[in-house]
Amino acid sequence: MKLLRVGPEGAERPAVLAEDGSLLDLSGLTREIDGDFLATDLERAKAAYAAGELPPIQNTKRIGAPVARPGKVVCVGLNYRDHAEETGADVPAEPIIFMKASNTVVGPDDDVLIPRGSEKTDYEVELAVVLGGRARYLDSPADARPLVAGYAISNDVSEREFQLERGGQWDKGKSCETFNPLGPHLVTADEIDDPQNLGLRLWVNGELRQDGDTKNMIFPVDHLIWYLSQFMVLDPGDVINTGTPAGVALGSPGISFLRQGDIVELEIDGLGRQRQRLT
Amino acid sequence: MKLLRVGPEGAERPAVLAEDGSLLDLSGLTREIDGDFLATDLERAKAAYAAGELPPIQNTKRIGAPVARPGKVVCVGLNYRDHAEETGADVPAEPIIFMKASNTVVGPDDDVLIPRGSEKTDYEVELAVVLGGRARYLDSPADARPLVAGYAISNDVSEREFQLERGGQWDKGKSCETFNPLGPHLVTADEIDDPQNLGLRLWVNGELRQDGDTKNMIFPVDHLIWYLSQFMVLDPGDVINTGTPAGVALGSPGISFLRQGDIVELEIDGLGRQRQRLT
Repeated sequence: MKLLRVGPEGAERPAVLAEDGSLLDLSGLTREIDGDFLATDLERAKAAYAAGELPPIQNTKRIGAPVARPGKVVCVGLNYRDHAEETGADVPAEPIIFMKASNTVVGPDDDVLIPRGSEKTDYEVELAVVLGGRARYLDSPADARPLVAGYAISNDVSEREFQLERGGQWDKGKSCETFNPLGPHLVTADEIDDPQNLGLRLWVNGELRQDGDTKNMIFPVDHLIWYLSQFMVLDPGDVINTGTPAGVALGSPGISFLRQGDIVELEIDGLGRQRQRLT
Repeated sequence: MKLLRVGPEGAERPAVLAEDGSLLDLSGLTREIDGDFLATDLERAKAAYAAGELPPIQNTKRIGAPVARPGKVVCVGLNYRDHAEETGADVPAEPIIFMKASNTVVGPDDDVLIPRGSEKTDYEVELAVVLGGRARYLDSPADARPLVAGYAISNDVSEREFQLERGGQWDKGKSCETFNPLGPHLVTADEIDDPQNLGLRLWVNGELRQDGDTKNMIFPVDHLIWYLSQFMVLDPGDVINTGTPAGVALGSPGISFLRQGDIVELEIDGLGRQRQRLT
């Protein structure tokens, strides 16, 4: 099932994207697609959808992020061998973790704001994993998969000067306003046979910049969830950005950072497509 | 006014601690002490308190964190000169920022869990600032003060091996379960004449370990809010942990890290007292 939220910012309505491309209204079952819904009502929504009980929605001007108010957005750094190499970093021995403020999460086609004073705004196509269960001290990566509600595309927008040249920790360049387009939909885990076999691509102004595959992750999704659960409690609705493949501007001599008016498009097999204008 | 939340975990009720030490019920005015309340209803609560309209509460077995579900917890590293020195770090040229998962926030006297495998769990008494307004690209530090809802004590519990020796970013050692006792109350900004003139102290098993003063912050509160607002949007209910003075175990040769059964007590002038047992 493909879950999404449609409508004006702050007034999104929960919906299902049907197989035939039409939109169905989920608001009779839940007020929000959030951690509570993903933890307790996902099967009920699937049943209502399968039974043809969901009414259609007409007005679909804007698509919001498919998860409302994630409790946290945890990010994994340098999780593709080729990206670690392009940034001149060693391949990490264990996952590198940082956080993004969760109010950076916006719709998949919303404008992305270049921060004031920024000269190094960069893009990162990533597979986002959304939790449907609570992960706390999992015994092994094998325990992780049942806790995944679904997958989505994430653009882990990054300001490289703020991240790397302004003292301290990466978080400073990761949490600017609008820096996490998410969606268009949350594809439930049962629809993705193998999260480690998905092509992911990103274009800037029509030019292909990133062309990777989740099979090249250093630490796969199940490992990441198990690993993170040793250091923090992951709650339903939390988002994990699992890292980006090669091709970001930071690692590409001669490639410019993002500028006002640029169009960024992202795609992951089975997860749809995003399109943002830089403003 | 001193705002707090009392009752079992997950079922706290909003309250006011009156001048005479009694507890008054705020649940007739608001369901929660959260960002929405702090942004819109704080003055109404003050008026109701002043008019003697709030009924008493009897049952006060547990005090929760004074803010429910902060959208984010932003932390400032090495913000006291003496603490920067004890850790061997240079005094930073601009604030060092990192994040804590907001589900680490617990009540001021709740148990703190030593993470599995941890040998370096450490304490940090800090002045927490809670936002009552939205901070986005503030023009100057002078614009920050009206956006502060109030102040509280924060224990920025930290696992130093996870933070510093496990690859990458500090966040890994900052977000473990129960790692942010907050409270006992949120003291509204009008009751604190000068947030840069508060003594802050921390004891382990009765022994004074930290004894600082917010006047020794490198970057004062107003500067921090203004600075952060250039890199992210701060929302009502967000918490800023403004850094810790000297005396943490990390910086004190011969001082052991925290162990099961240890008692940590924290105090900040005008903000009350916390007491946690390590388990």
